[in-house]
Amino acid sequence: MAPIHATDYLASPGSTVDLASLATLSRIAAHGKKALRAQLRKRVRRFGVLQEALYAESRQALLLIFQGMDAAGKDSTIKYVTTGVNPQGFRVSNFQRPTRKDIEHSYLRRHWLALPERGRIGIFNRSHYEEVVTLRVHPELLAQRKLPPQPAGPGFWRQRLVDIAAFEAHLAANGTAVAKFFLNVSKAEQKRRLLRRLNNPTKLWKFDAADLEARQRWDDYRRAYEAAFAATSTPNAPWYIVPADDKPAMRVIVASIIVETLAAMQPRYPAPDDAQRARVAAARAALGC
Amino acid sequence: MAPIHATDYLASPGSTVDLASLATLSRIAAHGKKALRAQLRKRVRRFGVLQEALYAESRQALLLIFQGMDAAGKDSTIKYVTTGVNPQGFRVSNFQRPTRKDIEHSYLRRHWLALPERGRIGIFNRSHYEEVVTLRVHPELLAQRKLPPQPAGPGFWRQRLVDIAAFEAHLAANGTAVAKFFLNVSKAEQKRRLLRRLNNPTKLWKFDAADLEARQRWDDYRRAYEAAFAATSTPNAPWYIVPADDKPAMRVIVASIIVETLAAMQPRYPAPDDAQRARVAAARAALGC
Repeated sequence: MAPIHATDYLASPGSTVDLASLATLSRIAAHGKKALRAQLRKRVRRFGVLQEALYAESRQALLLIFQGMDAAGKDSTIKYVTTGVNPQGFRVSNFQRPTRKDIEHSYLRRHWLALPERGRIGIFNRSHYEEVVTLRVHPELLAQRKLPPQPAGPGFWRQRLVDIAAFEAHLAANGTAVAKFFLNVSKAEQKRRLLRRLNNPTKLWKFDAADLEARQRWDDYRRAYEAAFAATSTPNAPWYIVPADDKPAMRVIVASIIVETLAAMQPRYPAPDDAQRARVAAARAALGC
Repeated sequence: MAPIHATDYLASPGSTVDLASLATLSRIAAHGKKALRAQLRKRVRRFGVLQEALYAESRQALLLIFQGMDAAGKDSTIKYVTTGVNPQGFRVSNFQRPTRKDIEHSYLRRHWLALPERGRIGIFNRSHYEEVVTLRVHPELLAQRKLPPQPAGPGFWRQRLVDIAAFEAHLAANGTAVAKFFLNVSKAEQKRRLLRRLNNPTKLWKFDAADLEARQRWDDYRRAYEAAFAATSTPNAPWYIVPADDKPAMRVIVASIIVETLAAMQPRYPAPDDAQRARVAAARAALGC
């Protein structure tokens, strides 16, 4: 299989993405399930090795953000790319509708609370981007947020995107790398997956009537996402747009980008200083070897 | 007494303050302690009235930040201007050196955690500005912050000031007004106050050898503060520079600015809607009047 480069999926900083023009089925899907599974295993192993070094180094952190339309495969992708990685090293935060406590503060606060400590990996399943996508498509939801009265015009959304870019730039400058994944599923494939949910008793619980409603507003969501990519895909917090119609291919791509991101962070095991070396020598002596 | 206007103490957005050229003794000190105390009581009463409305409205919040050299009067000013205001409506956060847990995250996080909910007033006694003032004068302290290796040159501090301005702009856009006070004490008055600490058994506990060290770096602190004012005094999060050599005068000025800030927020008691009006009428009937 040809090597996968993160840049091939990058929403270039400063330029506008036309989501409708992007393939939702990756060419690497042609390799077939079995080959893709082997490729995924290889990358997850590498993910685990790099994560151990990040943990030992304990200076940098990594935040992975997953967004996508319903049934794009956020849950299962997170599950597959982390299987086998030491669970002590990461934490998945699932952001549902904000609680009554959440709305007593600005929308960014609950995301601040879920950020990974140094040496850890934080995974956001949905994120603060809901505040500039779902809320932008449904501005009527803003009325429940207890905000001071203000017009929710383009300036309002622009300010939110500026706030988010500044938030992520701050994280990057203070040791937390950020990588963001948009799982790009086609409308036809989403329909198949939603129907499968309706027909499968073990998946039925995931069905939400709101999913169909969002489906009807597909183009509005697309435009809101495009505005978010244009304003917030930066060298320090890039957006990757991953074809999501074939799940095994999508998982390999996501795992590749995670590994490339972690490798670029160059996590290093702390080198023992003189005092530590002396303690090691003393311990060797005490153990008689 | 002539009315006190917040703008007279404002560090104008976008321009550079020359702290050394500003008076540290207010002209209103000439009114004498007794008159100033009466003025303070008047303003604190008004503060309390506005705070009740803010609490009932429960949409906006207010963050008051206090900075200044040691012995500038931060603690006592906070005490005097809040005495008599309902303590349920505000909370004072005192930011000492960050703990081991704090440094596992970016420096802004512990300040995020202490932000006031809607309807409340948060008071920061020292704040995230220590990160661009004390740390800038003592960059050697950065080594304890577990940051990834990076040069702490002018670009580093500029990025921090940009981050802080963005953080405060975000708060303002989401309903939390911010007002920042620099209590401007002279070096001669600080000396008197530090000596008084050394000679008073009930104040001795406040003495810290680090205070003398900071005194020796007076001009470095001054320059770091000036850089912070220039980068972060904005219409939504203004810095006020308050002459601090006379404490009763300083308290009146601070209380005036707080009242002016709160009044400009126009907190309003929620108007009862039709359902609430019906419930009120039913309650009246049930109580037989």
